[in-house]
Amino acid sequence: MLTYAEAMQRVTTMQAQLQARGVDGALFIFPIDVYYFSGTRQNSTLWVPATGEPILMVRKSLARAQVESVLTDIRSFPSSREFPALFGEQVQKIGFTFDVAPVQQLNYYSKLLPGREFVDISAINREVRSIKSAYEIEQLRVSGRSLCSVFKQVPQFLKAGMRELDLAAEFEHRLRTAGNEGYIRMRAFNQELFMGLALSAGAASYGFFDGAVTGRGLSNASPQGASTQVIGHNEPVFLDYTGVFNGYITDMTRMFVIGTLDPELQHAFDLSLQIQLHLQKALKPGAICEELFQQAVEIADKGGLGANFMGMPGEQARFVGHGVGLELDEFPVLAQGFKMPLHSGQTIAIEPKFVFPGKGVIGIENTFAVSNCGGEKITDIDDEIVFL
Amino acid sequence: MLTYAEAMQRVTTMQAQLQARGVDGALFIFPIDVYYFSGTRQNSTLWVPATGEPILMVRKSLARAQVESVLTDIRSFPSSREFPALFGEQVQKIGFTFDVAPVQQLNYYSKLLPGREFVDISAINREVRSIKSAYEIEQLRVSGRSLCSVFKQVPQFLKAGMRELDLAAEFEHRLRTAGNEGYIRMRAFNQELFMGLALSAGAASYGFFDGAVTGRGLSNASPQGASTQVIGHNEPVFLDYTGVFNGYITDMTRMFVIGTLDPELQHAFDLSLQIQLHLQKALKPGAICEELFQQAVEIADKGGLGANFMGMPGEQARFVGHGVGLELDEFPVLAQGFKMPLHSGQTIAIEPKFVFPGKGVIGIENTFAVSNCGGEKITDIDDEIVFL
Repeated sequence: MLTYAEAMQRVTTMQAQLQARGVDGALFIFPIDVYYFSGTRQNSTLWVPATGEPILMVRKSLARAQVESVLTDIRSFPSSREFPALFGEQVQKIGFTFDVAPVQQLNYYSKLLPGREFVDISAINREVRSIKSAYEIEQLRVSGRSLCSVFKQVPQFLKAGMRELDLAAEFEHRLRTAGNEGYIRMRAFNQELFMGLALSAGAASYGFFDGAVTGRGLSNASPQGASTQVIGHNEPVFLDYTGVFNGYITDMTRMFVIGTLDPELQHAFDLSLQIQLHLQKALKPGAICEELFQQAVEIADKGGLGANFMGMPGEQARFVGHGVGLELDEFPVLAQGFKMPLHSGQTIAIEPKFVFPGKGVIGIENTFAVSNCGGEKITDIDDEIVFL
Repeated sequence: MLTYAEAMQRVTTMQAQLQARGVDGALFIFPIDVYYFSGTRQNSTLWVPATGEPILMVRKSLARAQVESVLTDIRSFPSSREFPALFGEQVQKIGFTFDVAPVQQLNYYSKLLPGREFVDISAINREVRSIKSAYEIEQLRVSGRSLCSVFKQVPQFLKAGMRELDLAAEFEHRLRTAGNEGYIRMRAFNQELFMGLALSAGAASYGFFDGAVTGRGLSNASPQGASTQVIGHNEPVFLDYTGVFNGYITDMTRMFVIGTLDPELQHAFDLSLQIQLHLQKALKPGAICEELFQQAVEIADKGGLGANFMGMPGEQARFVGHGVGLELDEFPVLAQGFKMPLHSGQTIAIEPKFVFPGKGVIGIENTFAVSNCGGEKITDIDDEIVFL
């Protein structure tokens, strides 16, 4: 459980950022943002003034928020008349998360607090949250161990002749009984994911959104993840799943083959491991995100598979890793255009993958913590392809 | 699959609404809105002019959108320079879904189209979508049959001594292998749900958000749904699950008891059925949503259980039914403040429920289609409590 000391550490880190930018406070309305600072995701709005104590205003359930939150000032959501009185006249510039807050919410709070300027603090918020405390990294380790325990069981139930969907359902069943909370939080607009992907060879021809690999899915309405395609012999079976425990998300991928594997695909897998090893060693404070992505591309190019790296030829994603934590798409991103340096305590899923239309998807993914010694592997089981 | 004729029917219905309000067109960016009009949820933006042909602008994957969408004008998302040229000078007032579009998205499109006024069309959009075509009602029937098939299997696997989580995992496994797409779309800000709820007696003491019943969940980060609490004899076991097939969501609840049930809870169940029957008969075009909710409250009051209706005493939700379709929280809502009349073809989950702190949750839920003969039951299996 989050302690009061740690919650206040998070609050003061955010306050320093607000002060540095001349923002008088931040109004958080997105559930996981409220949870990060308060310890509850009950339906609430959190006011973090640039100095002083935060106020948690709860719509529902107040009783539950009082049990769950470690903050000291927890109250019912005030009436429209009482609300402005909580904000002194000196509060003029209010931080708001423009990345996730719908326009109607901004309009609602602007009307409650007339004359104030609302400014976008999305990037600050993501940067603050990207650096995990020792407590958070321990939560991620617990999440990683649980997720790994299910990956280890795959040889018990993966059989030729089962549909991708049957493999997914069996994996998800074991993930749930291991305590997986199921619902995956993503921050970027337009993102939807149900637990993970279980894909056979045919999946390689289907893509959408910003991931490297998505699968066919069950319909045009849900066009990703497992389909009803049957898994056969001698093809790469690709399992990319998330673990969600106490809110903390780990992300990993392993490959399975019933029979033998095409040497070209084995070469792609070896290249994935080579990229992963290179990046793991480089996951130190100060390394530049974009440069790590470029280095991954160079290794893929040198290995002759640049055109298959991170997506179908022509639809390649321009990243090789993404932050994970309370959301699956946290900062930092190892991607083109991300020029920021890594910080100790950031946690990143590294996922070099190669797509071969008609033949399948090959790759590896593990969650690492950035440290002075390079990436600490949080999803710590053997990386090799499992042949059955 | 959506046909071109039906997609154009939806487009022209929306266009009539835009014209009636003097809006020159609508820019849809929310995936399920794009899907509704185009047949694809690939990462795209859809322009529906007040008159003329819609334009689907695809970020990724264009190839897949071309296969999936029935629209005729499908193109790559234009460059910032090319984008404004798609909108003639006569386009001044642009509809946008302020309910779901993040502020950053509004700012992005406002910058692409300087000088234009963006107006909120959230309500129009939800109203148009609330009335289902014959095709859509058939999709909901398929969804309902699949969901019912899993509810029928519960006596095979519900046992005393299993955790709520084990029951959930088993139910979800069967739901997935039956073809359930898993990811549940909800429109309202702040909503999160993973497939459904499997709750034992202790669940009654835990609530959050706008639902009547939520359960304890596995952590403060995921405070709803199944917990690790063990299911015992002689207590109400509450299963509230959704079916998602071809994007269409049905919603239902059934009760199970291993042993016998407290007569007070049996009375509450009988009252649930009485309310459901009353509302089913009343689900005709022209009935006023708010009045149906009030009638449900009156029956609960007369039965002596007004204080337990739709939530814990003191935290009661003020609704008894909600629209379902491509989202779990569609229009109309049978709730206080909803003064609109019902229309033929609307599909509504009716869910009278009673909460008894420490004793459990009791209720029923079925998805109905509004018709001239009253509600057509789409989740059509027996309503009675299953005693094991």
